[in-house]
Amino acid sequence: MEKFEVHILGCGSAMPTMRHNPPSQVINIREKLFMIDCGENAQVQLRRMKLKFTRLSHIFISHLHGDHCLGLPGLLSTLGLMGRTGEVVIHSPGGLEQAFAPLLKVFCADLPYKLTFQPFGTMGSELIYDDRSVQVFTIPLQHRIPTSGFLFREKPLSNHILRSACDFYRVPVEWMCRIKAGFDYEAPDGTIVPNAKLSEPSLPPRSYAYCSDTLYTESIVPYLKGVDLLYHEATFAQSDQKQAIARFHSTASEAATIARMAEVKRLLLGHYSARYTDEKELLEEAKAVFPATELTKEGKVFSV
Amino acid sequence: MEKFEVHILGCGSAMPTMRHNPPSQVINIREKLFMIDCGENAQVQLRRMKLKFTRLSHIFISHLHGDHCLGLPGLLSTLGLMGRTGEVVIHSPGGLEQAFAPLLKVFCADLPYKLTFQPFGTMGSELIYDDRSVQVFTIPLQHRIPTSGFLFREKPLSNHILRSACDFYRVPVEWMCRIKAGFDYEAPDGTIVPNAKLSEPSLPPRSYAYCSDTLYTESIVPYLKGVDLLYHEATFAQSDQKQAIARFHSTASEAATIARMAEVKRLLLGHYSARYTDEKELLEEAKAVFPATELTKEGKVFSV
Repeated sequence: MEKFEVHILGCGSAMPTMRHNPPSQVINIREKLFMIDCGENAQVQLRRMKLKFTRLSHIFISHLHGDHCLGLPGLLSTLGLMGRTGEVVIHSPGGLEQAFAPLLKVFCADLPYKLTFQPFGTMGSELIYDDRSVQVFTIPLQHRIPTSGFLFREKPLSNHILRSACDFYRVPVEWMCRIKAGFDYEAPDGTIVPNAKLSEPSLPPRSYAYCSDTLYTESIVPYLKGVDLLYHEATFAQSDQKQAIARFHSTASEAATIARMAEVKRLLLGHYSARYTDEKELLEEAKAVFPATELTKEGKVFSV
Repeated sequence: MEKFEVHILGCGSAMPTMRHNPPSQVINIREKLFMIDCGENAQVQLRRMKLKFTRLSHIFISHLHGDHCLGLPGLLSTLGLMGRTGEVVIHSPGGLEQAFAPLLKVFCADLPYKLTFQPFGTMGSELIYDDRSVQVFTIPLQHRIPTSGFLFREKPLSNHILRSACDFYRVPVEWMCRIKAGFDYEAPDGTIVPNAKLSEPSLPPRSYAYCSDTLYTESIVPYLKGVDLLYHEATFAQSDQKQAIARFHSTASEAATIARMAEVKRLLLGHYSARYTDEKELLEEAKAVFPATELTKEGKVFSV
């Protein structure tokens, strides 16, 4: 199966602790790396997890809070020191470039690569990235400032060629693209070989959704419908729901409710408040609502 | 003896590694903390070393390279989250405030404490901090951009009272300050008791000098004359001297030469290039020139 993995670089929240790094994840889709959020020290985590800096070109920032983006200048500077030449694109709500520009001018002058800021709107869902294997859409979240989640949706893979059948029917090489695309084979003598004899459909496309930071809001459910893996912030336990509402965050039980309503396959929790020294409490609470729940942790890798 | 300690938060250089954090030190003088340089992740190191955030009010930045100051926004933001109210002063070469202002406006809006940027000149030595126990002077270094080292010079402690002698001569409490300051005691009957009978001089004031980053330059020797502890960068080994010169850095052997010329008591090395997986090579090289040399390492504490 083609690679589609979620690497957890950090799953803490605003107040740094020694147990958790601030939020950052790397999505590996067929050896292309995409970073979501970039808290302080993300570059060292990237190194620790042996992820290749050279394969990272797109960084997606959910919102302009420090714990989600203060690792950017260090990472961008290191990419420069490593002699990178390929463009780096940072997708974020508006204002990021303005906030970082004077700093980058001083600390990242003469980068050997092109750095592009690509702002997106946060009121609806936008397609912000599209290549031949994946599309990335924003998900409008509800936080204290404009915030978006991200939906990574794999594009359908072409059919798998059944090699021996193609040999048997002597399908010429130049037909293979069409067979992969689902067409029947028409032999030189006019015989039609149905596609189902020559190929089999590949696995259905997979999807991963990242929702952090957000107040509990059912308005996001339609965007998450049936995703294979959902990361939903669970900053607080249900017993601290008042605090969650005041800070525009969610509880573990609320995250699980969203997962259940959206009928996702699996749920990941994260963005833990520093007040919890053991996140098992959050896990138990979520599992009671949605059993297929796991805790994220620095260094963990989840296959979608 | 009154506390005067150097805590090593980071001793790497520009390229981050998993062995070293970027440069940062905390000087503890009589339970007041002073930070020198603030590379990414310095705040987590501060926590790891159990140094009290509340006791830190002055941060000294040697120069405007990212590895020496990109930990500032995260630290300043965390101080705010912790509810700090006392002023924080950042001493640095000019331009730091301008570089950080738009970023701080976004990520550190509404700090509950006053943040002051105090720029200093880098052409000569300036007194930039002065309280009743310590003075901090800049040391002009030679780097690619304006850079200063720092000299922490303890103020002389007042004499130690010899309690039993004072009791014997019935020196009243209101005389103690004068006795500590070295005055003789004049009894009500006109008898003079010489100060040497009532107090003994305290230990001579100690000093710590921090020199990073700099090209080998003997021009700094006069500022370092006789200091108790000198930290001098040793980015490269002597075999890579060409590289050191090109990047305006020093070799371990050059650091030791400066220590020997300045007749300091002890030398600390740091700011190691990522190319050395074992810094013993740097240590051996320096020790050959100046035996009282030690390597810095994250988590280490040196008493001055």
